[in-house]
Amino acid sequence: MTNDSGGTLQDVGEFALIDRIIDPGDSGAPFVLVGPGDDTAVVLAPDGRVVITCDMLVEGRHFRRDWSTAIDVGRKAAAASLADVAAMGARATSLVVSFGAPGDLPAVWAVSCTAGIREEAAIVGAVIVGGDVVEAAQVVISVTALGDLEGRAPVLRSGARPGDVLAIAGRFGWSAAGLALLQRGFKSPKVLVDAHRYPQPPYARGPEAAIAGATSMIDVSDGLVADARHVAVASGVDIAIDTSAWEIPEPMQAAAAAYNVDPRGWMLAGGEDHALLATFPADSPLPTGFEAIGAVLPCAAEPAVTVDGVHRDEVGGHRHFS
Amino acid sequence: MTNDSGGTLQDVGEFALIDRIIDPGDSGAPFVLVGPGDDTAVVLAPDGRVVITCDMLVEGRHFRRDWSTAIDVGRKAAAASLADVAAMGARATSLVVSFGAPGDLPAVWAVSCTAGIREEAAIVGAVIVGGDVVEAAQVVISVTALGDLEGRAPVLRSGARPGDVLAIAGRFGWSAAGLALLQRGFKSPKVLVDAHRYPQPPYARGPEAAIAGATSMIDVSDGLVADARHVAVASGVDIAIDTSAWEIPEPMQAAAAAYNVDPRGWMLAGGEDHALLATFPADSPLPTGFEAIGAVLPCAAEPAVTVDGVHRDEVGGHRHFS
Repeated sequence: MTNDSGGTLQDVGEFALIDRIIDPGDSGAPFVLVGPGDDTAVVLAPDGRVVITCDMLVEGRHFRRDWSTAIDVGRKAAAASLADVAAMGARATSLVVSFGAPGDLPAVWAVSCTAGIREEAAIVGAVIVGGDVVEAAQVVISVTALGDLEGRAPVLRSGARPGDVLAIAGRFGWSAAGLALLQRGFKSPKVLVDAHRYPQPPYARGPEAAIAGATSMIDVSDGLVADARHVAVASGVDIAIDTSAWEIPEPMQAAAAAYNVDPRGWMLAGGEDHALLATFPADSPLPTGFEAIGAVLPCAAEPAVTVDGVHRDEVGGHRHFS
Repeated sequence: MTNDSGGTLQDVGEFALIDRIIDPGDSGAPFVLVGPGDDTAVVLAPDGRVVITCDMLVEGRHFRRDWSTAIDVGRKAAAASLADVAAMGARATSLVVSFGAPGDLPAVWAVSCTAGIREEAAIVGAVIVGGDVVEAAQVVISVTALGDLEGRAPVLRSGARPGDVLAIAGRFGWSAAGLALLQRGFKSPKVLVDAHRYPQPPYARGPEAAIAGATSMIDVSDGLVADARHVAVASGVDIAIDTSAWEIPEPMQAAAAAYNVDPRGWMLAGGEDHALLATFPADSPLPTGFEAIGAVLPCAAEPAVTVDGVHRDEVGGHRHFS
């Protein structure tokens, strides 16, 4: 990967780049019948259904090459789609990747970014089965993930019922705190900056929540309040978030104290950590890794989200084109 | 689609744009269990396997907005992936689409482009089940297609055997001829210019070829010679193309005469028409729509392609980064 990746994409050319990106090991993975290199891949779908989702990351908007390594960006690009699969209660099996970049991009960057995608996918046992490489004005990466439901019903956004407990698994607000640090020119606490560079979604909690009877689930990519609103609207309910019992993680306490801000701002509005937000019947014990942070209520007027009793209207996340 | 799509993407904003792009009809399609709007779509995979492929189109490289309408571009973007599915002998069931564009793009362009993707997918009975919309420096469209093999083995590039007949279904060279016209500032013959704006791949011929016993298949996206070489290399054979019996389609004759060129140049090197190139055992009748254009021979040295007995080395297609 180092000796044969000198030069730019222009120097290397499309076909040689593809040769360097493809890992023959991917073709041997359990779900893969035909890997990269033919007109399409062929992937097992033992359940008779597949879940499918895509996310596109754009340089300068979702990442900066001076803030993140190519591996970080690859991991982040893969995580966006893999977390969506987990949020349905499914297990990801495979990815296809469209990669656009300028001709003067170092070839090693493209190869490392793909390695990052592969590393992140490996966490859940998924592999890259195909892709496309094209010249573009900026780095753009679209990752499509396929997943298997293993016989279970998908956990939709629309299943929350009044009386359910609202619970969350995984970090939330860390990426937003890390971004705030980077924007002020700081690189510590490192754990927060790293959380912005690439998330660590609690992938395994998705299928576990489905098995435990989650009535609804979503991954937090726009921000906790904004994504809770997606659930509220889809389910026709109100959602009440209660921050009074929150333990603020230590690095966020430190960063918030340094900047004299309330760390709950990051936790309520920050996206990109891909925590899993789910609702469970009140009488069933929460599965490991989930923590109760609120309740589902009957819809009073329009579906709404309150935080400590106050209505909140955040849209959150990247608001593209606005 | 006209009254409510005034203004730019910036004016409309991400979420309102998504509302305009989504067609509720897609969620009711036969293969779709969960359509757009949740973390992922859920699609039936009755065969227990799915084929999956993605292609990315970039403005200025694969299309120009002053040469093609938004609907043309959408159709072309969908065709690239749908033809790959057909070339495996599969039927496309569904698409997911990543769409990046500058904030000053007219919203109606994005809506029409999506309508073009939907129109092209409808030809094969597939629908859009999900997507992502992001801000980018130029229009970039990544379409991922899923398909069903209906119990058949996928038709790979690697199955051509010496003695097989090489045959092709669908137009080839038309898009290249149309591009040559556009580059010289002409807009006729219109049928050729239209062929460059969006292809008309013979999708149904793919599954029919598989049923008829095709030993290998590929869609012609890089050019006839270049894609024949992909088959030759994957199969470890030589491929001999014979142009002596070709009937040159009338519009190509006219354009070639006007420019004093050999139209077979476009037919041998032009990509993007997404014709289906397949090999069949010599003793089985060719399925409807396929025409014999050559033969598969034992590999003499390195796998090679000859045209009328002469070795050809074209790489063809968009050579990105070179």
